[in-house]
Amino acid sequence: MRQSSPLLLKQTHGLRRAIRSAQYNGPTSGLATGAMQGKVVILPADWADEFLLYCQKNPTSCPLIGISEVGDFRLPKLGSDIDLRYDIPEYCIYQHGKKVNSCTDIATHWQDNFVTFVLGCSFSFENALSQAGLTPRNVEEQVDVPMYETNIATVPVGRFFGNTIVTMRPYSPKDAIHAIQITSRFPKAHGAPLHFGSPSDIGIDNLALPDFGNTVSIKEGEVPIFWASGITPQIAVQNASPPIYITNAPGKMLVTDLLDMDLTII
Amino acid sequence: MRQSSPLLLKQTHGLRRAIRSAQYNGPTSGLATGAMQGKVVILPADWADEFLLYCQKNPTSCPLIGISEVGDFRLPKLGSDIDLRYDIPEYCIYQHGKKVNSCTDIATHWQDNFVTFVLGCSFSFENALSQAGLTPRNVEEQVDVPMYETNIATVPVGRFFGNTIVTMRPYSPKDAIHAIQITSRFPKAHGAPLHFGSPSDIGIDNLALPDFGNTVSIKEGEVPIFWASGITPQIAVQNASPPIYITNAPGKMLVTDLLDMDLTII
Repeated sequence: MRQSSPLLLKQTHGLRRAIRSAQYNGPTSGLATGAMQGKVVILPADWADEFLLYCQKNPTSCPLIGISEVGDFRLPKLGSDIDLRYDIPEYCIYQHGKKVNSCTDIATHWQDNFVTFVLGCSFSFENALSQAGLTPRNVEEQVDVPMYETNIATVPVGRFFGNTIVTMRPYSPKDAIHAIQITSRFPKAHGAPLHFGSPSDIGIDNLALPDFGNTVSIKEGEVPIFWASGITPQIAVQNASPPIYITNAPGKMLVTDLLDMDLTII
Repeated sequence: MRQSSPLLLKQTHGLRRAIRSAQYNGPTSGLATGAMQGKVVILPADWADEFLLYCQKNPTSCPLIGISEVGDFRLPKLGSDIDLRYDIPEYCIYQHGKKVNSCTDIATHWQDNFVTFVLGCSFSFENALSQAGLTPRNVEEQVDVPMYETNIATVPVGRFFGNTIVTMRPYSPKDAIHAIQITSRFPKAHGAPLHFGSPSDIGIDNLALPDFGNTVSIKEGEVPIFWASGITPQIAVQNASPPIYITNAPGKMLVTDLLDMDLTII
């Protein structure tokens, strides 16, 4: 692990403090750039082993970068002061697969048997793409990345199953080749794309109608490029339908003290 | 540089001896697998500096891996016993841009002012693709890879100029992503592709009519992937039209003692 610069640490700690005190509850994209952000899934312990195995069997969709002790709301390896009850701008609480609440902290919902999973997120490689002059269209157009359910089944484990959800970013073939190279460096942030070109090959009927997120414009000569999405495990948990589970709200991540660059392999 | 195994060195030396004595004058593809093979361009010294600069300005098409001293027919860094007058199965001799002769040695044509350039060749990454289960179609179908002239101009230098020539190998999108990753590791063997998909984007009118080499079959769902070709510098030399120059015949390379793996960056 590389050590974050004091300046960046000051940013991440300041941002977490603002989130913790509910002074900030917005999206985290573009904030504390360079600091690694992660998706969060909080599950009862008796569901955790099965979900851990599901992540292990589906590493491209579910790149695990942190897991808490049972009942522990701290995650010292991802940030010395992290408190998982407060440090996400907005939480979604689900019961039996249905969303029942969203809130800026889960202090009153916290259970002694909760286990927290933190998963790598495409924000990490989006920063790298932007730095290489390949700013994703969703970043340019300041919208959520379009996401689609595919017909690519994940490897089911116990009660967890579902199809792979993908994000889509359009590029010219030349830029796509470069984007494949860049994102290959981030296996813990979904890595290289799964597919490019014909959406119907992977069961996507209409690019203009994403299942989640927003549409983005596709310019002449550009090809849709599809990466695995961290929504995949969230859908698998929804399918498993535990009595209670908690996730971060879309686009509102856990900001860690690790660096995006900590996720690169070269 | 990694040291070739004694077994492989025995193969490369044995193969070069057979070529040197004109016992073998066929294609070198698939022979001494693992040993790096290179394309060769032999030029009079007063054309060499300009060609060197052309290679430097067009590194993807012209990945230079060796250059001889003026008038020296040895290349000890690529193989202790290499004799450039004999060690290529078949030479093509050009005068003022026109092929005037082909022969199995150039002993009688050798000039004291010759400079030899050795360029990395896609055989190196084709071996790596095959080992990864992505055997190129031209290898499967035992034909020359199809090559096309594009409308992508190389950077001209002095008398050297021309469009980029590309090779084409078809892959499914999923395999293409993997092939991009693998070939990215071989910047000295043309590296990652330049383009995929629509041939007309880069000025190729008809995939079924390659400008050099043979056609290969393209299966349903496959996409043409285009890599820079070592024919590019040969065309640039042809355009420059020196009074004399010599190249290896297509598919008949200089077999070196280096390893394909010596060309990888990771």
